[in-house]
Amino acid sequence: MGKLLIVGTVAFDAIETPFGKTDKILGGAATYIGLSASQFGVDSGIVSVVGGDFPEEYLKMLNDRNIDTSGVEVVEDGKTFFWSGRYHNDLNTRDTLITDLNVLANFNPIVPAHYLDSEFLMLGNLHPSVQLSVINQISVRPKLVVLDTMNFWMDNTLDELLEVIKKIDVITINDEEARQLSGEYSLVRAAQKIHKMGPNYVVIKKGEHGALLFNNGDVFFAPALPLEEVFDPTGAGDTFAGGFIGYLASTHDISFENMKRAIIFGSNLASFSVEKFGTERMEDLSNLEVQNRLQEFKELTQFEIELT
Amino acid sequence: MGKLLIVGTVAFDAIETPFGKTDKILGGAATYIGLSASQFGVDSGIVSVVGGDFPEEYLKMLNDRNIDTSGVEVVEDGKTFFWSGRYHNDLNTRDTLITDLNVLANFNPIVPAHYLDSEFLMLGNLHPSVQLSVINQISVRPKLVVLDTMNFWMDNTLDELLEVIKKIDVITINDEEARQLSGEYSLVRAAQKIHKMGPNYVVIKKGEHGALLFNNGDVFFAPALPLEEVFDPTGAGDTFAGGFIGYLASTHDISFENMKRAIIFGSNLASFSVEKFGTERMEDLSNLEVQNRLQEFKELTQFEIELT
Repeated sequence: MGKLLIVGTVAFDAIETPFGKTDKILGGAATYIGLSASQFGVDSGIVSVVGGDFPEEYLKMLNDRNIDTSGVEVVEDGKTFFWSGRYHNDLNTRDTLITDLNVLANFNPIVPAHYLDSEFLMLGNLHPSVQLSVINQISVRPKLVVLDTMNFWMDNTLDELLEVIKKIDVITINDEEARQLSGEYSLVRAAQKIHKMGPNYVVIKKGEHGALLFNNGDVFFAPALPLEEVFDPTGAGDTFAGGFIGYLASTHDISFENMKRAIIFGSNLASFSVEKFGTERMEDLSNLEVQNRLQEFKELTQFEIELT
Repeated sequence: MGKLLIVGTVAFDAIETPFGKTDKILGGAATYIGLSASQFGVDSGIVSVVGGDFPEEYLKMLNDRNIDTSGVEVVEDGKTFFWSGRYHNDLNTRDTLITDLNVLANFNPIVPAHYLDSEFLMLGNLHPSVQLSVINQISVRPKLVVLDTMNFWMDNTLDELLEVIKKIDVITINDEEARQLSGEYSLVRAAQKIHKMGPNYVVIKKGEHGALLFNNGDVFFAPALPLEEVFDPTGAGDTFAGGFIGYLASTHDISFENMKRAIIFGSNLASFSVEKFGTERMEDLSNLEVQNRLQEFKELTQFEIELT
């Protein structure tokens, strides 16, 4: 079991979908990653920042799941990062209505002393300079560094992002972002180019169409579970990433074979996350439910054909 | 080994892709289906119609692959069905430039006597009244009837199409067509509604995103092989369907487990079809290549996780 350090946003979200809307609820990349990874009982800690308006009960909920929040700075006279978005009817696309950076605007991350030797580092979607600062604070090079990022940083801080990408082992981005970053339409070619930027492993997330894991010549594919209804896709990508690194940290095995399992668990957990608004489903998710859904993934994908 | 009857177009296509363009080359749903099914050495026959302009050598090429063309009517003073299309840069969308029905406009299909007892019937994309006529000519209800159709028939001849759908076992359509036919956005719900229209098996083709096989509560997913380059998608769906029914006919086993294998073989063969213009790649495809690619499909999708 390896210690897992997560850097990312802890935030308020307000979400509109065709099924309804929420007030400000708990959100943020690090929140989803932490909840997802907690399914594997890993020792994890979050580095983030919130304002004085952030409810103590949210931090307690995370602590109850063995997620250390001593690295979550509380700026008493500041306000928590707030994002608001509205999903279209297909739930595949959304408009951002509000992005209030608030305390995130001047965030200077500080890794707690007892996480300076983390073997697994998850860099959630955030300004690349914050991600870089965390990498530089870790005393011993972690066994595995996973980066999640998005097109916003490609548009606005590409040079800093490329600096981070040089230093990591795994990048998780969606298909359009992989195309943007590489300038290649074919995802196979996009992965080849991104490999050359640094990471040995490239995970391309395709939402309802599953996820691809590339490791130079090798490729593995995990489908998304076909669902009758997607209620709220917010945080699905972060939940996927959290399941991926949480499983790897809990098994302490970063072989390609084990990464296949990690991708399946990431898809498994993401399929729960979208069933309710925000983090609600992830907060009450049991291991038995995850195991049962694993069986569904096996039935969905496994076949037997003898080669002749 | 079951006898396979294929009804569908045999045609000329002129294709433009970002990689180049062709003059009139061999095309048509039945052509692609037949070539794909021929990989499994089944006894197959095509029911179709061509004009006097159709080269004898094309029929000979099919015959050389054990495809009986005695059911392909040649209208000496007529012209062969012609389709022309231009693919966009992403190769996922295309514009139809020309559709000349020609001899297809008055096609009255006649099933040759020695195929009246076919155990496997593939209804390729064509006017539903032609598909219905073939169903009605078959003396003994086949072991399996597979239908491929498209949105054009949903728009223009929905009542006749629904008559056909009532009588079949398997329908193969793409995701947008499944949504149109069912009025449901979720593919799981769409499959449920389409089940109620008749077919016990619903195959939803998602192009580069793979294919789903629904059988009431059960679902299986086959990915498309991630390719560096898709050269020409024309006929990929027909090739998929031909591989599916060809494998089932050759194994004479229509269990759900065997349909999983058939879906994998369909995806396997379709991944070759798109590598060159038209039918070129399918004409020279060897069994060894298919077997090697099957190994790639296994590596792409198979994983081992013990349930705890």
